[in-house]
Amino acid sequence: MNTFGNKLKLSTFGESHGTAIGGIIDGLPAGIKVDMEFIQNELDKRRPGGKYATSRKESDKVEILSGIYDGFTTGCPVGFIIANTSQHSKDYDNIKDLFRPGHADYTYFAKFGIRDHRGGGRSSARESACRVAGGAFAALLLAEFGISVQSCVTQVGDIKAKDIDFDFANSSEIFWADQSNQDSAKELILNTKNDNDSLGATVLTIIKDAPAGLGEVLYNKLDAALASAMMGINGVKGVEIGDGIDVANMLGSSNNDCMNKDGFITNHCGGILGGISNGNDIVIKSHFKPTPSIFKAQPTINLDGNEVICELRGRHDPCIGVRGSVVATAMARLVIADMLLLNASANLNNLKRIYE
Amino acid sequence: MNTFGNKLKLSTFGESHGTAIGGIIDGLPAGIKVDMEFIQNELDKRRPGGKYATSRKESDKVEILSGIYDGFTTGCPVGFIIANTSQHSKDYDNIKDLFRPGHADYTYFAKFGIRDHRGGGRSSARESACRVAGGAFAALLLAEFGISVQSCVTQVGDIKAKDIDFDFANSSEIFWADQSNQDSAKELILNTKNDNDSLGATVLTIIKDAPAGLGEVLYNKLDAALASAMMGINGVKGVEIGDGIDVANMLGSSNNDCMNKDGFITNHCGGILGGISNGNDIVIKSHFKPTPSIFKAQPTINLDGNEVICELRGRHDPCIGVRGSVVATAMARLVIADMLLLNASANLNNLKRIYE
Amino acid sequence: MNTFGNKLKLSTFGESHGTAIGGIIDGLPAGIKVDMEFIQNELDKRRPGGKYATSRKESDKVEILSGIYDGFTTGCPVGFIIANTSQHSKDYDNIKDLFRPGHADYTYFAKFGIRDHRGGGRSSARESACRVAGGAFAALLLAEFGISVQSCVTQVGDIKAKDIDFDFANSSEIFWADQSNQDSAKELILNTKNDNDSLGATVLTIIKDAPAGLGEVLYNKLDAALASAMMGINGVKGVEIGDGIDVANMLGSSNNDCMNKDGFITNHCGGILGGISNGNDIVIKSHFKPTPSIFKAQPTINLDGNEVICELRGRHDPCIGVRGSVVATAMARLVIADMLLLNASANLNNLKRIYE
Amino acid sequence: MNTFGNKLKLSTFGESHGTAIGGIIDGLPAGIKVDMEFIQNELDKRRPGGKYATSRKESDKVEILSGIYDGFTTGCPVGFIIANTSQHSKDYDNIKDLFRPGHADYTYFAKFGIRDHRGGGRSSARESACRVAGGAFAALLLAEFGISVQSCVTQVGDIKAKDIDFDFANSSEIFWADQSNQDSAKELILNTKNDNDSLGATVLTIIKDAPAGLGEVLYNKLDAALASAMMGINGVKGVEIGDGIDVANMLGSSNNDCMNKDGFITNHCGGILGGISNGNDIVIKSHFKPTPSIFKAQPTINLDGNEVICELRGRHDPCIGVRGSVVATAMARLVIADMLLLNASANLNNLKRIYE
Repeated sequence: MNTFGNKLKLSTFGESHGTAIGGIIDGLPAGIKVDMEFIQNELDKRRPGGKYATSRKESDKVEILSGIYDGFTTGCPVGFIIANTSQHSKDYDNIKDLFRPGHADYTYFAKFGIRDHRGGGRSSARESACRVAGGAFAALLLAEFGISVQSCVTQVGDIKAKDIDFDFANSSEIFWADQSNQDSAKELILNTKNDNDSLGATVLTIIKDAPAGLGEVLYNKLDAALASAMMGINGVKGVEIGDGIDVANMLGSSNNDCMNKDGFITNHCGGILGGISNGNDIVIKSHFKPTPSIFKAQPTINLDGNEVICELRGRHDPCIGVRGSVVATAMARLVIADMLLLNASANLNNLKRIYE
Repeated sequence: MNTFGNKLKLSTFGESHGTAIGGIIDGLPAGIKVDMEFIQNELDKRRPGGKYATSRKESDKVEILSGIYDGFTTGCPVGFIIANTSQHSKDYDNIKDLFRPGHADYTYFAKFGIRDHRGGGRSSARESACRVAGGAFAALLLAEFGISVQSCVTQVGDIKAKDIDFDFANSSEIFWADQSNQDSAKELILNTKNDNDSLGATVLTIIKDAPAGLGEVLYNKLDAALASAMMGINGVKGVEIGDGIDVANMLGSSNNDCMNKDGFITNHCGGILGGISNGNDIVIKSHFKPTPSIFKAQPTINLDGNEVICELRGRHDPCIGVRGSVVATAMARLVIADMLLLNASANLNNLKRIYE
Repeated sequence: MNTFGNKLKLSTFGESHGTAIGGIIDGLPAGIKVDMEFIQNELDKRRPGGKYATSRKESDKVEILSGIYDGFTTGCPVGFIIANTSQHSKDYDNIKDLFRPGHADYTYFAKFGIRDHRGGGRSSARESACRVAGGAFAALLLAEFGISVQSCVTQVGDIKAKDIDFDFANSSEIFWADQSNQDSAKELILNTKNDNDSLGATVLTIIKDAPAGLGEVLYNKLDAALASAMMGINGVKGVEIGDGIDVANMLGSSNNDCMNKDGFITNHCGGILGGISNGNDIVIKSHFKPTPSIFKAQPTINLDGNEVICELRGRHDPCIGVRGSVVATAMARLVIADMLLLNASANLNNLKRIYE
Repeated sequence: MNTFGNKLKLSTFGESHGTAIGGIIDGLPAGIKVDMEFIQNELDKRRPGGKYATSRKESDKVEILSGIYDGFTTGCPVGFIIANTSQHSKDYDNIKDLFRPGHADYTYFAKFGIRDHRGGGRSSARESACRVAGGAFAALLLAEFGISVQSCVTQVGDIKAKDIDFDFANSSEIFWADQSNQDSAKELILNTKNDNDSLGATVLTIIKDAPAGLGEVLYNKLDAALASAMMGINGVKGVEIGDGIDVANMLGSSNNDCMNKDGFITNHCGGILGGISNGNDIVIKSHFKPTPSIFKAQPTINLDGNEVICELRGRHDPCIGVRGSVVATAMARLVIADMLLLNASANLNNLKRIYE
């Protein structure tokens, strides 16, 4: 369904070329001061535009319709909409009756028997603006407890960041982690774009200062929830926690995180043990496939099953992982905020603090 | 919480050293013929024992308490229990007051303020026997529609399977995919065990003959659900779908799966586009960390925060990924069966077939 | 939370005096033809205005933002908003710091520590316009299977309808069931209004032509879901199914519904046995309390706990049960549509019809 | 599905004549001292036996399989089973192929196409023993906060309790509220039983000392949840909160609960305003139909649609409302405990008390 989360729920609606997209954020505790500038700023980070993204022009102004009174959350659901203003639906007329390679065209049609082909309809990454809005509200809650979430791009094609510098990434047009080779990364993106092709990418997300104890036993573990959140982002095909896939080639004696008086000595586990946070940095890597929309001719079939050539028009990101990093931050915020709320009733001591 | 799935739900209970573990499978359609031998056989695959697994002896007989009449499912929940018979709780007396590295001891204590230390309590992989039972029931449903799920081990430490042969893996003591280097894999496991250490592993899972159209829009996508299912298995730290993490270094033109009259020409996407199955093989890789229980001395702290040395006794798998492959199959079965049921009401045509 | 339903979900947001109210309808099967005139017409039935309702003027135009393509549902969520245009927030300035008797003022404040006092905020019956919109979409689905839902008012104060005539009720300004004493009912409402007081009412809802088999085993029974739906409507304090509270004074021999070749001979059970529909009319009665907003002076306390007199201004229904009957229809539609979808996977035969 | 509750979940399984019934209680906070004697005592109240109940002999010993360590809850799910020992399945041979009037036989068959006819299978009130076990655990949590729930029978047939005395009811064999006419009530039950017939009943349930603020906005209101809980008990056909159905004939000026410095002056609303508790007694009435199993010949049809006469054997309660009162208490406990947990994250102040 179109709802994410258990106690903090984000429900979204909207297609790429409809009137508006939007959503409902339900379960936000009452009493959170709402910083609208911060929320719009998060939307702006993901907003289309610039050399390294689609040239679709959207202001992406988020309009809040409910749930806030006198500048504070009321405990009631926050409804919001983001207008679609720059739809060029005609760009999609020629793909109305065929299935674009790498897209959800075929699968939506197989499932529903009907497909809104304009801009990819519901399957478009445009919906992720709603995720960013939801994540921004979650961030307001997290900030009350000193918890922060940040992401950066650590790989595009065969170029990898050598150092991780979140401060630099925050000011980078492509959210790149490493000042020393940002130019190479940018150049690769532009060259690939000019070659009518697209690039994959890897995004690193870190959650800082989450308390130990977050994550549910035994089927809504924190790592399982993060994996679902990240794999559910458009284009993500791999998710790693901590040492990730490298653990397959490790020994227990080198993978275990031992402790001393100051806490955990290492963080191979990426801040999660048994599905529950251990108080260390929570470390997630998400791997994005290259944008499926490319400007090369590709063989496909049409609705009648006949073979045709797909030639795309429209405006597309050369590397969806770049803006995807903003979405990764949003999803991690939603997960950790949800877990914070769920955990409130984990033990009698917590409840006694509230009700006595 | 302790429930997995939406329309087909598996809820489990039980600790490693309690009286019994068990669960409830809810949402199974009525009218499925129940092959108890098949179900027990699945349990037997995961059962402890043998050179390559823990020496804990459990018969793991699953006892069905409800939901079946005259050999068929009734539409009512299937309750089942699996007795614990070989608990050696005394093996754990010395770790009662300390946190074992790599385990959930610290995080459970942080969350709940109380911890059943015997055998790891609820966080023990023993619970996965319930997942296997649930997955076996799901398999009965899937078999009615010709859908199958299988897993094999493709990497332990630095040894990788070169070929994938599921038939061979089915008869392999370590579910190894490749006859040509099974001996090396086995030798590595035993050597590591003899060295009081443990090994990581990679498991490949393939779902065959699932129809196109499975997976929910937009926050219970098939890939997101599979990622959650796999990352939620004890010890899994990385999950990949299709080309997985390699997509970060691919071009759109090489990653897109084009189509001809016979369907998709390639399967880079691993059978899932836009979160929905496309009718091809669904391909998942799960990466297991080395068993955290090793017999080397490890520094840790006790409940009072003092530094102590952890020295383990007990019986442990040298490589949890081996038996973990059986659990991976079970989880994939649960996910795909759940999606099959959820999809039943996806469009009006489906419903008309039922109600008219 | 702010979501109703399991497979067909209505999530709503919005306060009485915010910018807009709205919601998301998720889980509608693809392929339903959307009759926008019908949907607006349902909204119009509940719309404020007229002698027997509040004089607040709202056009209640529902704007659909997503989920429909080419006139049909796409399987993607339907987002909608209904603008608030006639807020007179100043009418509420004098109650900002006190708790109105019979309203949710005190309880919202106790729960959240903050309260949007304008028009009752989220607790206002204004939200029910979203329920009516959701119910109208559910009705489109039900119509595909010949299922209908209708409601009428059968009691206001001490006046009871003697006959039940849904055709008459449909054209009655107060949805009254019985032409023979409608004038008395209207007169009572107006007299009570002129006396600055308000009236309770009883609403009868009947679901016709639902197939046998709807309702879940064992904690989402059809009757339990209907009871939750109806009791959750603002002001409802009693819900009955079939013979309702009268069963306490009946014998088994007179309450049991026996069968002959043509089906059930009687319908004491109101169409539900063991929580599952039996194919007969489903009969529900909902009892509405009098509108809490009256224009008499009432003792209460303010935020500081001091005793004050509450004197209301604003525009209010003299009898909320009248417009409540439209909401009752909507909720019953949502429940029965949800059950229709849930039931699609109840047995293997249903699934075989879909997937084979 | 077979799960009740949101944050505190009770999932159950089991049929009347299976090996055992049982369930899982998930979401109990860690650290609650478990009084097993209290829990068994609650089961004993509902246990079959005695002149006024079925003569089926069951010891109803509840066996706890998990979730408790050292006498305290661990935060992990509590699995439990209750053996079936006194099944007389042969008593049901003659009804294998026909539909008993007033029972779920027809509707289960319509839904599932298969039916466990022995003792009513899953639809039997035997399952309610699991509800009582779940409710008893909820009561342990509630007791930590001084919240209590109790029920009594206030009407059987045309005999109504004039006074409500819960102390008396606790010691009454039929949980009757009023010492002054208990003999008449008992006599009526026995006479009806001797006449091979059965009786309806009304049960009053009161929740004392629940804090203000419990209940979710806007579709999991406290009253809606209670209505669902009560209407979902076998045989309940009407549910009232506070003044209940009488509100249809009340004026706002007499129904509103005004306040003074000491709180609410009256309690017409039954402790719930806007779906949220106001701190007063929460008052619920549930109306039970007469036991459908009677020993009179009744016309019905068989699986082939032919008209036959149903003549029952077996052991049945003459008045299910009597033991139903124990179940009503259990369900109210589950609801209020669930709401207590859900409310823990309602506002930022609550969370700050926990996390700071």
